Amino acid sequence: MVKVIEIKKSVFAENDKDAAALRSDLKGRGVYLLNLMSSPGAGKTTTLIGTINRLKDKIKVAVMEADIDSDVDAVKIKEATGVESIQLHTGGMCHLDAEMTRQGLANVALDGCDLVILENVGNLVCPAEFDTGAVRNAMILSVPEGDDKPLKYPLMFTVCDLVLINKTDVMPYFNFDIERCKEYIRRRNPNAKVIPVCAKTGEGLDLFAEWLLEEVKNWKQ
Amino acid sequence: MVKVIEIKKSVFAENDKDAAALRSDLKGRGVYLLNLMSSPGAGKTTTLIGTINRLKDKIKVAVMEADIDSDVDAVKIKEATGVESIQLHTGGMCHLDAEMTRQGLANVALDGCDLVILENVGNLVCPAEFDTGAVRNAMILSVPEGDDKPLKYPLMFTVCDLVLINKTDVMPYFNFDIERCKEYIRRRNPNAKVIPVCAKTGEGLDLFAEWLLEEVKNWKQ
Repeated sequence: MVKVIEIKKSVFAENDKDAAALRSDLKGRGVYLLNLMSSPGAGKTTTLIGTINRLKDKIKVAVMEADIDSDVDAVKIKEATGVESIQLHTGGMCHLDAEMTRQGLANVALDGCDLVILENVGNLVCPAEFDTGAVRNAMILSVPEGDDKPLKYPLMFTVCDLVLINKTDVMPYFNFDIERCKEYIRRRNPNAKVIPVCAKTGEGLDLFAEWLLEEVKNWKQ
Repeated sequence: MVKVIEIKKSVFAENDKDAAALRSDLKGRGVYLLNLMSSPGAGKTTTLIGTINRLKDKIKVAVMEADIDSDVDAVKIKEATGVESIQLHTGGMCHLDAEMTRQGLANVALDGCDLVILENVGNLVCPAEFDTGAVRNAMILSVPEGDDKPLKYPLMFTVCDLVLINKTDVMPYFNFDIERCKEYIRRRNPNAKVIPVCAKTGEGLDLFAEWLLEEVKNWKQ
């Protein structure tokens, strides 16, 4: 069983202000929040499981899973990693904003927690428009989606500090040029870090885990 | 070069009424409108190219491509099929509604046109909520996304009359159980027709083309 939280739509129009306030609260408590986004089926949950299992002996991690109405992913994370995992029911909503994120965080045991990962709704459009209050935005682009996605979903790639390119094991079966993809990502955000991973085999997840450890360390300073 | 249309957000709150009126207009003109939806990178454009090339000698087809800001897909369709193809710029919007669709159709040569295919924004959440005025909704689920998507994006599968399961050629590399997937789709919509296709090899596209021919024929009666 995992906690299931019904999320209500924000009454604040000023989401950016609200997000900045949430980020400041989290800074005060030494809690790092990562907002993880992707298309449906890009491998967010599998990537998280592999990464959390590399982190959980070093730092305390919790996960908030945004899902339209199932709790499949939160249960999976809890069973596979043992870390606290709650489900945020969005009731069909296409994104999370800062107030919804705050409602979720109110249900997480934040004392002593170093890292909270928010698995956002599977959607490359709407979630990019709303600052959740996270320290960083990260996204997963999976190889079968194609290397042209930064051209087609520009805002998503512009707002992400980290892009994981997942399912690299099936690269031979798709016409995916990783160098071209990196170039398209750079056009949207020259500072974005790109890490190729394969959540299924675990390849690259050490690098993602190291990036997170370094981020959390810096945030707590 | 393809036509690029800037789409403005609807001022009508009553989208359902507006959609019904558009559908009725199209009925009067003998034009069948299909609303095609999917996740980013599921293969909408490649599927359309193969299908239109099977149809274009039998009926007159036009395509409207909704895209956030590129015209890559509209150009591709025009070059690969020769049929009229226009781009609807959604300016970052996550879906199309009936009024936006009407604005697009005003730029298509509808006289003598039998079938217009609207390639909606790549998104499994928001487009499902808005009736575009299409006769039918269809969607493409690609194998790499996983067979559990009907559980996670319930509304999308509920509103679709036809589900194409694409990229069947990579089935061996993904843990995708097509029978389980069909069962999940049936839970959302017992009447949905499911056609497995592989847009890359053309497998299954004859069936999709036949379905469309039959639909258009019935609509014109």
